[in-house]
Amino acid sequence: MSNISVGIVGYGNLGRGAEISVAANPDMALKAIFSRRSLDHPLHASMEKILDWRDELDVLLLCGGSATDLPEQAPALAEHFHLVDSFDTHARIPEHHAAVDAAALRGGKIAVISTGWDPGLFSLMRVLFEAVLPRGNGHTFWGRGVSQGHSDAVRRIPGVRDARQYTIPSETALARVRSGENPELSTREKHSRLCYVVLEEGADAAAVEDAIVTLPHYFADYDTTVHFVSADELERDHSGLPHGGFVLRSGETGPGHRHLVEFGLQLESNPEFTASVLVACARAALRLARRGESGARTIFDLPIGLLSPHASEDLRRDVL
Amino acid sequence: MSNISVGIVGYGNLGRGAEISVAANPDMALKAIFSRRSLDHPLHASMEKILDWRDELDVLLLCGGSATDLPEQAPALAEHFHLVDSFDTHARIPEHHAAVDAAALRGGKIAVISTGWDPGLFSLMRVLFEAVLPRGNGHTFWGRGVSQGHSDAVRRIPGVRDARQYTIPSETALARVRSGENPELSTREKHSRLCYVVLEEGADAAAVEDAIVTLPHYFADYDTTVHFVSADELERDHSGLPHGGFVLRSGETGPGHRHLVEFGLQLESNPEFTASVLVACARAALRLARRGESGARTIFDLPIGLLSPHASEDLRRDVL
Repeated sequence: MSNISVGIVGYGNLGRGAEISVAANPDMALKAIFSRRSLDHPLHASMEKILDWRDELDVLLLCGGSATDLPEQAPALAEHFHLVDSFDTHARIPEHHAAVDAAALRGGKIAVISTGWDPGLFSLMRVLFEAVLPRGNGHTFWGRGVSQGHSDAVRRIPGVRDARQYTIPSETALARVRSGENPELSTREKHSRLCYVVLEEGADAAAVEDAIVTLPHYFADYDTTVHFVSADELERDHSGLPHGGFVLRSGETGPGHRHLVEFGLQLESNPEFTASVLVACARAALRLARRGESGARTIFDLPIGLLSPHASEDLRRDVL
Repeated sequence: MSNISVGIVGYGNLGRGAEISVAANPDMALKAIFSRRSLDHPLHASMEKILDWRDELDVLLLCGGSATDLPEQAPALAEHFHLVDSFDTHARIPEHHAAVDAAALRGGKIAVISTGWDPGLFSLMRVLFEAVLPRGNGHTFWGRGVSQGHSDAVRRIPGVRDARQYTIPSETALARVRSGENPELSTREKHSRLCYVVLEEGADAAAVEDAIVTLPHYFADYDTTVHFVSADELERDHSGLPHGGFVLRSGETGPGHRHLVEFGLQLESNPEFTASVLVACARAALRLARRGESGARTIFDLPIGLLSPHASEDLRRDVL
C-alpha cells in the first residue's frame, strides 16, 4: 500500500499529534488540516469546504473533542469520507456508533470510532483477556498521567488560576492483582490524585485545598494531595501530557493453575500516542473499504494485521 | 451463539488443556476426543473414523505436535472441518499456511493456524506494537518457564536420566528496555538457562555438566546453571509446566516523547493457557465461516471481538 492521502480535522493537541504520526508512516501523506480557526500552516484548509476534498483524500482523522465536535462531525462526514475518531464519552458510544454507522452505510464508507488507547488498545485487551481467561477477573489502572478533565475541574474552583492533576495508580493494589490474589478493590484503593495548583492573587490556600479534596465525583472518593506552586513552576515542571496505565486479568484454567495477563503503557505524550493509534486504524479502515465493507467499526472489528504497513505473507513469515 | 460442538485431536498435555478450556466456555460442548492411542475416556473416538464426524462437529482443535502431527493432520482435515492448530515450527509457517489454505478453500472451511501464545498472542502484540509505534524497537523475552525442547536436549545427553530446563529472562535486560534505553542485547544478555538434572547410576556429574553447558545452539550461547537433584526432587519440585514472557516496544513520536508498550504473561500451565487461546480462536473461526469466509487464517486476520462470547453491541456498550 502506498500513498494514503490523509486529512486531519481539528488542530489541537491530538491534531498536532496526528500530523507527527502521519509523518512517521511512509505509506501516508498529509494533504490538509481542517480547522475552524485560522491556522498558520501551509496545509490549512477551510472546514466549510471540506466536502470539496472528497476525491482528494483517502481518509479523515477526526481530532476534535468528544463533548461537541465528534458527535456532530463524525455522522456528518462519515457519508463522504472513510474516517477514524477517538470518541470517548463512554455512555454515549452506542448512540454515536448508530449515528455514524447509518451515515457510513449510506455513503459506502468505513468509520472506525472510539479508538486510541482507552477506549482503544485497553478495550481490545479487556476483550482479548476475557476471551482467553474466561474464569478470571480483570482490572484496569490508569496513570501515572495527567487527566485533562480533573485538571479542568480544579481550574473551575474559585481562587485557582491554573492547575494540573495527575492520576496515580496504587502500587500496592497493582501488586495484589499481580500476585493472583484477585482482590476486591475500592475506588480509593486503586488510584490516588495529585494536584499542582497556582493560586489567584490573595486566594485562601486552605479553602481552595478543602474545595478540591471534597469535590464530589472528581476527588471526594480518592486520597488527594494538593501542592501549591508558582505559575513558573507549573510551566517548567508540569507542561507535559504523560499518561498510561495497565490492563490486567488474573484467572484459572485447571484446578490450581493460575495465570496473569498484563498490558501496560507508559506514554510521555498522551495525544501523540493516541494519534498514532488513530493513524494505524486509518490504514485498517482503508483495507476494509477495499474489501467492499462499509459502516461503523471499532477496534474489536479490526483484524490487527490490517493495522500494519506490512503484507500478510510478510507478517506470517517474519513476525508470527 | 450457543452450543458449539468441539472435537479434540490428540490427547497429550495440550489436548487435556483443551478439554479443560472447552468446559470453561458455556457456549461450547466437547463431543469427541480423537486419538490413535486407546484412551480410557468416555469421549474417545477413533482417529481413523474422524471423517464420519463431519456433520456432528462444528470445529476441531488440533492438539498434536508440530514436528509430525500437524503438518500431516491440518492439511488433511481442513477440507472437512473448521479447525484451529498451534503449529509453531517458525521456518515452516509459510508452507504450512499454503497447504492448509488450499485444503480449507477446497472445502469451504476456516482454519486458524499457529495460534496460542507464541506464536499467537505474542505475535499479535508484536504486530500491534509496531503499527502504533513505527519509530521504535521491539523485544521479546521468554520465561520464567519450562522449555520442552531444551529439557529434551538435556535428556539426550549420556548419563542423564531425567531433566527439566527453565528459561529465565534477565531482569537487568528487561529493566534496560523498560527504561527506554533501547539497548542492543546479545543472546547471553537476554536469557539465562537453569537445568535440574537426575543422573543415571554412576554417571560423571562434571562430564554431564560440561556436555550441557557447551551444547551448541541449545546452551553454548547462554549462561547455564546445572543443579543435580534426585528423581523424587524433580518430581516434587519441577513437575509443573509454567511459562510466560514479555513483549515490549519502546519508541518515539514527537521529538523527546518516548513511549513504552508492554505485554506480559505469567502462566502456571503453559499447555492449559495455550489451549485456552485455541478455544477462543475456534469461536472466531466459526464466526468467520458464518460470514461465508474460507481459507487459512492467523491471529493477525481475526477481529478480536470475534474471540469473545459476547455480542458486538454488548462489547461496545460494556467494554469499549
